[in-house]
Amino acid sequence: MTANPTAAMLVIGDEILSGRTRDGNSHYLAGELTRHGIRLCEIRVVADDRDAIIAAVNALRAAWDHVFTCGGIGPTHDDITAEAIAAAFGVPIAIRQDAHDLLAAHYARTGLEFNEARQRMARIPDGARLIENPVSAAPGFTLGNVHVMAGVPNIFQAMVASVMPTLTGGEPLLSQSLRVDRGEGEIAAPFAALAAEFPDLQMGSYPFIRNGAYGANLVIRGTDAGRISAAMTRLAALFPQPQ
Amino acid sequence: MTANPTAAMLVIGDEILSGRTRDGNSHYLAGELTRHGIRLCEIRVVADDRDAIIAAVNALRAAWDHVFTCGGIGPTHDDITAEAIAAAFGVPIAIRQDAHDLLAAHYARTGLEFNEARQRMARIPDGARLIENPVSAAPGFTLGNVHVMAGVPNIFQAMVASVMPTLTGGEPLLSQSLRVDRGEGEIAAPFAALAAEFPDLQMGSYPFIRNGAYGANLVIRGTDAGRISAAMTRLAALFPQPQ
Repeated sequence: MTANPTAAMLVIGDEILSGRTRDGNSHYLAGELTRHGIRLCEIRVVADDRDAIIAAVNALRAAWDHVFTCGGIGPTHDDITAEAIAAAFGVPIAIRQDAHDLLAAHYARTGLEFNEARQRMARIPDGARLIENPVSAAPGFTLGNVHVMAGVPNIFQAMVASVMPTLTGGEPLLSQSLRVDRGEGEIAAPFAALAAEFPDLQMGSYPFIRNGAYGANLVIRGTDAGRISAAMTRLAALFPQPQ
Repeated sequence: MTANPTAAMLVIGDEILSGRTRDGNSHYLAGELTRHGIRLCEIRVVADDRDAIIAAVNALRAAWDHVFTCGGIGPTHDDITAEAIAAAFGVPIAIRQDAHDLLAAHYARTGLEFNEARQRMARIPDGARLIENPVSAAPGFTLGNVHVMAGVPNIFQAMVASVMPTLTGGEPLLSQSLRVDRGEGEIAAPFAALAAEFPDLQMGSYPFIRNGAYGANLVIRGTDAGRISAAMTRLAALFPQPQ
């Protein structure tokens, strides 16, 4: 087994839980972390509820090396993430000068009023480091091992791009897959035997039904490209595909 | 506030966490539960890891009225959900005659061998009730307040359809929304004042950027259609849209 750093994602949003919006940020982050050799181990989605956010942040930051949150850092009354993160860490939160200044400059540039609601977005918990937001200026922040980011997908992605170079990654997590057009019941025994031969690799079977026919994508994951290739060669021989 | 039943979703799957597959089952379940008046309060995604599954199931079944799981009940070696659920409840698991019989009948019908791997899918924790699988026969099961279902989307959806009529729903959770083509910073103050006037409703602002322009969908949720309409009338007057 490798010692890749671990991470969790915390999505804060009633709109995901009500079924109104489909979360895409977790899927995006999962791909980015995998490329950086950081293992995403858990995703949670909780409501815009102070106690729920505090409990989830404290559980996740104790369990994993990094926690990424999205949602709830805008100017409206339902944006309570920054306050909840401060409470989770037991630190004060207030308008911070550097955050205030970059927002003030942004609104001066765009000709919009830097009103009280927008000033709320300069509230940053004590001890945090700002995360740059090249899209709409309002910063995210990193406090301890928790990276607090916006929920709007293109802002979230820009913030991930700001944070990722600051993190120490591990060996890239590699995978190869083979599509087998047979039911998993035919696949299971030889695939389990192969998995037992390669205990340093993870092997998973992801079944599907297409046009009424059963099949599965067999995926082999690890950090050693040579070992994965060796296992894939064996796998392909076990399940020859019709030409 | 209403006393709608609560629920959580637990997705079991390395393939979601690696970014290989995008989870769609949570979004589907969220919509179905909302229609049935059951409030989805939390979603978790954990790896195909026995301890992680046990910890999540035990936390979620204690916190919410219902828990729905998907993934990990197939015939391959990485399918460990049924065993983990049994362990979480501290009950034995073994091949059960009724599950065995319906699988045997299915494979007799389809002419496929009912081999050892497929027989594993008849392993059901003691005390569980089977959930029908009209697609591929292998049943899910309900143990206590935990509904254990397949991860393949069309099988998951069929199992949700089997389970949902057995659950006591609440008043349907209703919502209306208004798209406002202004930045949230303009919206925040009047929207917060309106939310304070209607404490029985939930009001959320979900910002977006489209073609470089800022806007937000303002959503009002509750169980009283008349109250929601009254609030929407007020909301529309606050933010008149250009014709």
